[in-house]
Amino acid sequence: MNFDRRIYNFSAGPAVLPEEVLREAQGEMLNYRASGMSVMEMSHRGSCFEEIISEARSSLARIINLPSNYEILFLQGGATLQFAAIPLNLARSKKAGYVLTGMWANKAYKEGLLFLDARVVASSEDENYSYIPSVDEKSIDQEFDYLHICENNTIYGTKYDVLPKTGVVPLVADMSSCFLSEEFDISSYGVVYAGAQKNIGPAGVTVVIVRKDLIQAELSAPTPSLMRWDLQAEAHSLYNTPPAYGIYMCGKVFKWIEQEGGLAAMGKRNHEKAQLLYDFLDQSKLFSATVKGSCRSRMNIPFVTGNDVLDKEFLVSADEAGLANLKGHRSVGGMRASLYNAMTIDGVRALVTHMDAFERAHR
Amino acid sequence: MNFDRRIYNFSAGPAVLPEEVLREAQGEMLNYRASGMSVMEMSHRGSCFEEIISEARSSLARIINLPSNYEILFLQGGATLQFAAIPLNLARSKKAGYVLTGMWANKAYKEGLLFLDARVVASSEDENYSYIPSVDEKSIDQEFDYLHICENNTIYGTKYDVLPKTGVVPLVADMSSCFLSEEFDISSYGVVYAGAQKNIGPAGVTVVIVRKDLIQAELSAPTPSLMRWDLQAEAHSLYNTPPAYGIYMCGKVFKWIEQEGGLAAMGKRNHEKAQLLYDFLDQSKLFSATVKGSCRSRMNIPFVTGNDVLDKEFLVSADEAGLANLKGHRSVGGMRASLYNAMTIDGVRALVTHMDAFERAHR
Repeated sequence: MNFDRRIYNFSAGPAVLPEEVLREAQGEMLNYRASGMSVMEMSHRGSCFEEIISEARSSLARIINLPSNYEILFLQGGATLQFAAIPLNLARSKKAGYVLTGMWANKAYKEGLLFLDARVVASSEDENYSYIPSVDEKSIDQEFDYLHICENNTIYGTKYDVLPKTGVVPLVADMSSCFLSEEFDISSYGVVYAGAQKNIGPAGVTVVIVRKDLIQAELSAPTPSLMRWDLQAEAHSLYNTPPAYGIYMCGKVFKWIEQEGGLAAMGKRNHEKAQLLYDFLDQSKLFSATVKGSCRSRMNIPFVTGNDVLDKEFLVSADEAGLANLKGHRSVGGMRASLYNAMTIDGVRALVTHMDAFERAHR
Repeated sequence: MNFDRRIYNFSAGPAVLPEEVLREAQGEMLNYRASGMSVMEMSHRGSCFEEIISEARSSLARIINLPSNYEILFLQGGATLQFAAIPLNLARSKKAGYVLTGMWANKAYKEGLLFLDARVVASSEDENYSYIPSVDEKSIDQEFDYLHICENNTIYGTKYDVLPKTGVVPLVADMSSCFLSEEFDISSYGVVYAGAQKNIGPAGVTVVIVRKDLIQAELSAPTPSLMRWDLQAEAHSLYNTPPAYGIYMCGKVFKWIEQEGGLAAMGKRNHEKAQLLYDFLDQSKLFSATVKGSCRSRMNIPFVTGNDVLDKEFLVSADEAGLANLKGHRSVGGMRASLYNAMTIDGVRALVTHMDAFERAHR
């Protein structure tokens, strides 16, 4: 397909970024604010980049109303490296609980098993992860080093409506695909982490927010230095050369979120966008959402026709119309529309209009 | 300082990139080759990015004449994460040799100590790492899992003129600051690795080239999955979401190197550039190079006046003239000019001209 314009990109991640942000980066590519250099060419120890990273940090802190007992880290390696960093950094009693709600939650659990006694506290595997299981507070051993959840499940399109109660056990949440999509109370969590490539920037940056008292300097197993939160916190995320350009882009996205009205505005818009698509799906006689009820994600919305041939035909027609990356993950099949912050309401309208026309044509 | 033009950037890394490459990326920022998306917004599983990463891989393979028994990996975490990945992936007998030639070589050694019996085989600490120590082949235990060297020492400005003979022991080289700066024979090495941010692209990508027979599937210690070379090789560097934009930029730099005439041309140009500066330093009555003889680096050239006040005055004057990031590392002091591939001969001429004028004014 050849497009001389920007398309509506429903990719699950890496995903659409705000056009304003891309334009600004484009303008600054060869000479960032009269520095004579691209941000890609700057020493990470220089004052110019120091300002970029510290502004990104404070913008994010403002957005989420961060209390002073939390630390923001900009790291590398994606959520996947944090799957290992979490047990390595948090191990004390060396046992932890995991809730299995899909592929990424399971990957985190399996990685946890490498480093400690990881236990499954609840699972929704019985129904192909199409719901969020309830977590019985009594099933959470109060000696757990943490309880791990994947708060929004990109593949299956589910999200926690209510967080599990964990008592004194710190809640650790992979928020990769819902981070900054709506208001949330950071003080409910011990650790929150997110790969940037959904809601906040290009792939290659991982945001980790840790309650400071959970950061340990004496770890119970040999740990690659780069993965140590204590060293990264001490070095203000500059333990080694950071993914500087990615952090710069994240900073621009944070600023964009602030300008748009912060998480309240994001939440309102994301609610409208998701409602538009769910409303269509719920009345459609051709398409249906694979997730029902209160655990529906507003970021990732899988849907099917129930007919593989029609699914394929729909995907081809959508691609041609500039509605891209709607193919569902193989574990669910069908289609999936990811409606991250940078997806406009116009994009969702265009999708619904296209689905409606397709349905009429295939009645 | 405010510059309406691009300056000469002598940063040790992140460092100057070819202007052509930046311009091309700028042009493609909002819509990569009629895809309707920025490369930052693309699914890493889509055909568009698959092509980007596979072209980057094959371009690099052509540049270094890669035999088929080597694997190229594009990873995250910088050389620092590889300091841990190397012992974790290569451990068999669980002992290895290290040559200490500066701060980064020492960091690699200390990280090695976390995971195996790391032994110092040679060191140039006695003279503040201003030379490359000779390595006696007999001092290399043939049961070592590897011998680790830092081939070019960014801070101290030294480079191996001749590689150590290691017998059957695989040579592992951190080439971060000399990678692709001249022709080299990859078959002399077991593993070569390099952070991108010197000669090949933006920070956040690490190139690792491994001889395939060294890749093990059964590791002797629990290892974060993301750090496992076997998994990354199997997944063609897409075990998780890669630093996609960085890889795209590296691919452009590889293509630029090919267009400029490959490593033979890079080597010739880098030789000329370094010679120009060393020749000036060797005749100067004010400035002198801190490294003598055959182990002089052509990428990083530290020099001093021997007078801290004059050093500072020189740095201020250079900054004003648009000759940036010349401050030396605190462990050597004075100045350092990094002359990576993308630094033009005009940039080096401008530097020498400025130094000459400064010397005349301070005679």
